[in-house]
Amino acid sequence: MRTITVGGAQLGPIARDESRAAVVMRLIVMLREARARDCDLVVFPELALTTFFPRWFMTLPAEIDAFFESEMPGRDTKPLFDEARRLGLAFCLGYAELAEEGATTKHYNTSILVDAAGRLVGKYRKIHLPGHVEHEPARPFQHLEKRYFDVGNLGFGVWRLLGGLVGMCICNDRRWPETYRVMGLQGVEMVLLGYNTPVHHPPAPEHDLLANFHNRLAMQAGAYQNATWVVGVAKCGREEGVDQIGQSQIIAPSGETVAMAATLGDELIVARCDLDLCRSYKTTVFDFARHRRPEHYRLIVDRTGPLPPA
Amino acid sequence: MRTITVGGAQLGPIARDESRAAVVMRLIVMLREARARDCDLVVFPELALTTFFPRWFMTLPAEIDAFFESEMPGRDTKPLFDEARRLGLAFCLGYAELAEEGATTKHYNTSILVDAAGRLVGKYRKIHLPGHVEHEPARPFQHLEKRYFDVGNLGFGVWRLLGGLVGMCICNDRRWPETYRVMGLQGVEMVLLGYNTPVHHPPAPEHDLLANFHNRLAMQAGAYQNATWVVGVAKCGREEGVDQIGQSQIIAPSGETVAMAATLGDELIVARCDLDLCRSYKTTVFDFARHRRPEHYRLIVDRTGPLPPA
Repeated sequence: MRTITVGGAQLGPIARDESRAAVVMRLIVMLREARARDCDLVVFPELALTTFFPRWFMTLPAEIDAFFESEMPGRDTKPLFDEARRLGLAFCLGYAELAEEGATTKHYNTSILVDAAGRLVGKYRKIHLPGHVEHEPARPFQHLEKRYFDVGNLGFGVWRLLGGLVGMCICNDRRWPETYRVMGLQGVEMVLLGYNTPVHHPPAPEHDLLANFHNRLAMQAGAYQNATWVVGVAKCGREEGVDQIGQSQIIAPSGETVAMAATLGDELIVARCDLDLCRSYKTTVFDFARHRRPEHYRLIVDRTGPLPPA
Repeated sequence: MRTITVGGAQLGPIARDESRAAVVMRLIVMLREARARDCDLVVFPELALTTFFPRWFMTLPAEIDAFFESEMPGRDTKPLFDEARRLGLAFCLGYAELAEEGATTKHYNTSILVDAAGRLVGKYRKIHLPGHVEHEPARPFQHLEKRYFDVGNLGFGVWRLLGGLVGMCICNDRRWPETYRVMGLQGVEMVLLGYNTPVHHPPAPEHDLLANFHNRLAMQAGAYQNATWVVGVAKCGREEGVDQIGQSQIIAPSGETVAMAATLGDELIVARCDLDLCRSYKTTVFDFARHRRPEHYRLIVDRTGPLPPA
């Protein structure tokens, strides 16, 4: 049996004026609980170091960039890396990344995978950016990810960690079956993902009461259809006046949720995940090599938006 | 508001010795109930004219071909077409199809879409054939779809019917997100699908108690992620000693099941489906043109089975 005991470190709200150092201290408290509960790996949410800043329209580059990290670890985050290494814990962390690419500075919504020795094992940059580009004053709050972030340029990777194959994605990526499938085609056994999901969706408020259902549905389907564990971790609760869903959960390759947060605050959920359970599905109903028919899937890459038949 | 009132005509077991004429009479009874309940369209299950014959190993071509239709409508099925036209009902019917292609005879697991005037609007041939090719005597029953059927050669089509865009798939296709996505990329608003799903899965009996959960999960995710209605219709109950799941259901573009069968017998479920509800999702969270990133989906078509990273 190959097992990873994973902790999903759900975070309650982070205030706009909360310092990095104070947030990192909250993360360290959760690392220590995870160690006490025998975790091998701790998953923090998307943008785990700051408030969810795309809810505000900002124009001053310095104001925007203050939410980003230009080095990782940096001065404020090094204590997190040090403590994880001291405790022998691998971790996954979401944050806003400033990256120098040639002569230009790029902004990504990023997550990294760090092993128990403190080595960077993998990096993912969010591909499915939700929301909008322009200021929409009629909304009670903005969702300006398409304004502040560049589309990720690293694809959906899978890395070896703790004897298993581990992938990452972020928030809105989890609603897109392509996300899981591209990782499934690399044999993924555990997908780590964080999210910040407002309850209220201004363009279609009729979805609001379904926010938890959609969160669970997309992640359970991704787990089942790719025979992988999924660890979904929220930043949640009322953050700067905006309610965000919780229900962080750990989902088995059967699609069953085996652990779920019960609060909207800082809360660690833990499951001992047998990676060999993936085989029960990967070798039968989802034996891709035997059953998939890519010759009939061409539209998935040949077309972006829908085109009705003539 | 564009609405289709759809009836899912779930069927209880069909015995091996039940004649086509007797089965067709059962279908006609359900057509009449559908008319009385104001349906526009009736969906019959996969292989709706016979017992689920892939559960038996057979070698004599004549014995196998006896379960197939070489013309549609044929002598036994014409009464169904006549009654549907008389009642002004469109319908979707699953059956085993013998097709002459050049010098060879092909065998398909097929469904057709027939409009209220009796015209053939669309045809689909099952692409994701489950099961196995060789006789496996250790199983309590066989699942020889890969033996008796050729892989469908018509792709996943979408057709105009009753003012909407309607697609079809069959049984195991519903577990594969590619199925729905290829139709979603043609703007599908209602997916019609029938299934015969044994409760017991001999290669992995640990799945048995999850059969209803997986059925619902896959169809709800397909509906939500493509902002389409899904009408899933079972042949169910204990057929020739093998238990098959029921829970035929009609699912809204929100992913919510709005009608579900309560029995394992012949039972019509009905829902009045507003096709414009699809827009609430197709123009926001699942606005494909705005959010999809096909450049990162290449593996879906470039690779059939999984390949772990080096």
